[in-house]
Amino acid sequence: MAEKPSGGPEAASNRSADIVAAAARADELCDAAFAGDRRALARLLTAVENRTPVAEAALRRLHSQAGHAQLVGITGPPGAGKSTLVAALIAELRRAGRPVAVVAVDPSSPITGGAVLGDRVRMQAYASDDGVFIRSMASRGHSGGLASTTASAAAVFDAAGFDVVLIETVGTGQSEVEVAATADTTVVVEAPEMGDEIQAIKAGLLEVADIVVVNKGDLPGSHRTAAQLRAMLSDAPDRAPRQGFPPPKSPDVLLVSAATGAGVAELLAAIDRHRLSSVAALNSDARLRRAEAQVWAVLADRLRSRIRALEEAGDNADATLLEAVAAHDLDPFEAADRLISRLTGE
Amino acid sequence: MAEKPSGGPEAASNRSADIVAAAARADELCDAAFAGDRRALARLLTAVENRTPVAEAALRRLHSQAGHAQLVGITGPPGAGKSTLVAALIAELRRAGRPVAVVAVDPSSPITGGAVLGDRVRMQAYASDDGVFIRSMASRGHSGGLASTTASAAAVFDAAGFDVVLIETVGTGQSEVEVAATADTTVVVEAPEMGDEIQAIKAGLLEVADIVVVNKGDLPGSHRTAAQLRAMLSDAPDRAPRQGFPPPKSPDVLLVSAATGAGVAELLAAIDRHRLSSVAALNSDARLRRAEAQVWAVLADRLRSRIRALEEAGDNADATLLEAVAAHDLDPFEAADRLISRLTGE
Repeated sequence: MAEKPSGGPEAASNRSADIVAAAARADELCDAAFAGDRRALARLLTAVENRTPVAEAALRRLHSQAGHAQLVGITGPPGAGKSTLVAALIAELRRAGRPVAVVAVDPSSPITGGAVLGDRVRMQAYASDDGVFIRSMASRGHSGGLASTTASAAAVFDAAGFDVVLIETVGTGQSEVEVAATADTTVVVEAPEMGDEIQAIKAGLLEVADIVVVNKGDLPGSHRTAAQLRAMLSDAPDRAPRQGFPPPKSPDVLLVSAATGAGVAELLAAIDRHRLSSVAALNSDARLRRAEAQVWAVLADRLRSRIRALEEAGDNADATLLEAVAAHDLDPFEAADRLISRLTGE
Repeated sequence: MAEKPSGGPEAASNRSADIVAAAARADELCDAAFAGDRRALARLLTAVENRTPVAEAALRRLHSQAGHAQLVGITGPPGAGKSTLVAALIAELRRAGRPVAVVAVDPSSPITGGAVLGDRVRMQAYASDDGVFIRSMASRGHSGGLASTTASAAAVFDAAGFDVVLIETVGTGQSEVEVAATADTTVVVEAPEMGDEIQAIKAGLLEVADIVVVNKGDLPGSHRTAAQLRAMLSDAPDRAPRQGFPPPKSPDVLLVSAATGAGVAELLAAIDRHRLSSVAALNSDARLRRAEAQVWAVLADRLRSRIRALEEAGDNADATLLEAVAAHDLDPFEAADRLISRLTGE
């Protein structure tokens, strides 16, 4: 919610009216979406992505209804076949009659209209299936952080009754890996026999994996890759807990061929087993980290607004704190301390 | 600096002693590093990466000395040959007698010891050259954000007298792209004729480019790729300014073969031209964004410490705010508002 610098009583009453209107609109969208209206659901998700007042009101309302879905992160390097795997998992879940939503964190830019990935086409088979909802999200411009926006989108699907929410990210960036790592179950997808640079990425990804999938399991080299991965995972006795990451564990390494469907049922069984395990329980590390990302995103938003308001309300010298830092006249620590003093009135 | 919950006068005096000791150590390391002691420089960078009290003291001290180096972000998808290009740029800069530092944001994990990329070996040629300093940084675990840590590392090199700081990131993640985008000049590297998924990444990357390099310019398809990129860039008349990103501009598209060295001199000339242009001037958008990332990282650190201290000092119910959110008993907005009230004493 965009807080403005404090105005007169008229401004305050306008703000109250805005809040009431946003809450009414949120109720309307939630009621419709939870009753199966897909356009209302899409609008809620757009509001969440844009962090509008309607999104805040909706997320406040639906938070107590969420917490039942299994959030499954699917991540891995480009070319590992994540989208094909997601399509295969959807097919498997639908055979069992389980409703599934997908949040695809798309590395392409809205500027070019978003390049259509080959597998998105395959997803169109589900256009008339109310048990499937696929949502692409831009990976940029989330002021509160990608992890928080994704968690909020997942909460919407969760409250709307989707049993499983698949969160697909390209696992080559810090934020994208963190997004997958805040899921209840994180599946890292690898293709057999990749080059040196991919190996490096792989090493970073393995830390967050609950389940490792070697995709394209019908290709030569896939068994060797699986064996190498198992060796890497057991060769890391010092898999110490690191800030923001789950405690050490030994993920399963599964061979899957998403294209032929071989191994997909076994993967879903492994995901379900993980769901039942303590790691995926309520108040698990993953859920606490997700809650922290959401709370901190709101906090950061609110504090940024307040700081901006203070700067605008103050004398003009205040507005140039960042400029002074950029010009190397003031160090960032001093600037931060001045802002905090103003904020807390110390 | 880790602020502790307020203790007695003894605790306060210990904290003061710690601050004085950190400042003394920072002075010692800065004096040595700026006089050419490479081990001291390495230790400063480690302190910066770990956000220690010594780092804060050093960054406060050296901030006014920084601001002279040209920060050049080098980013692009895996396999585009970024490391080879960085090696070629180093060679070109050294021929001109210009000191150059590299911050390589490494997607590999410290857990496996960090996979050695082929091109790192090539860099060993500069092991005895005091005009070259290469530093790898893990891309994970930066609580204050990767952009802020990288900016701080660049400030150390800047104050130490390096003329150019190359910041190499794998441009497939939100954070990594943002890191490159906070450089004065952002070079996006592409390889000719990549697949569909890479095309998607490319679209996202182009937004932040000041200069686009088609690497491996001796391969067939490189001219076509360059032509396609030029078309994409001119086909985007709606390149509107987006939050946290620079205003629209039309980047140059250059053909380079980092392996043979063809086009590298032209690339360096283009980087130097950009340095002189208004975009790269003091108080440019890039510098303001960098300052904002640094100030916000410090602010977030300080506020997190204060909030943690408040929770520890308060009744036990306070410590479970995150747990209540994770258990869906409290929504993240309410949790954030309660924390802010406590912080500002409202």
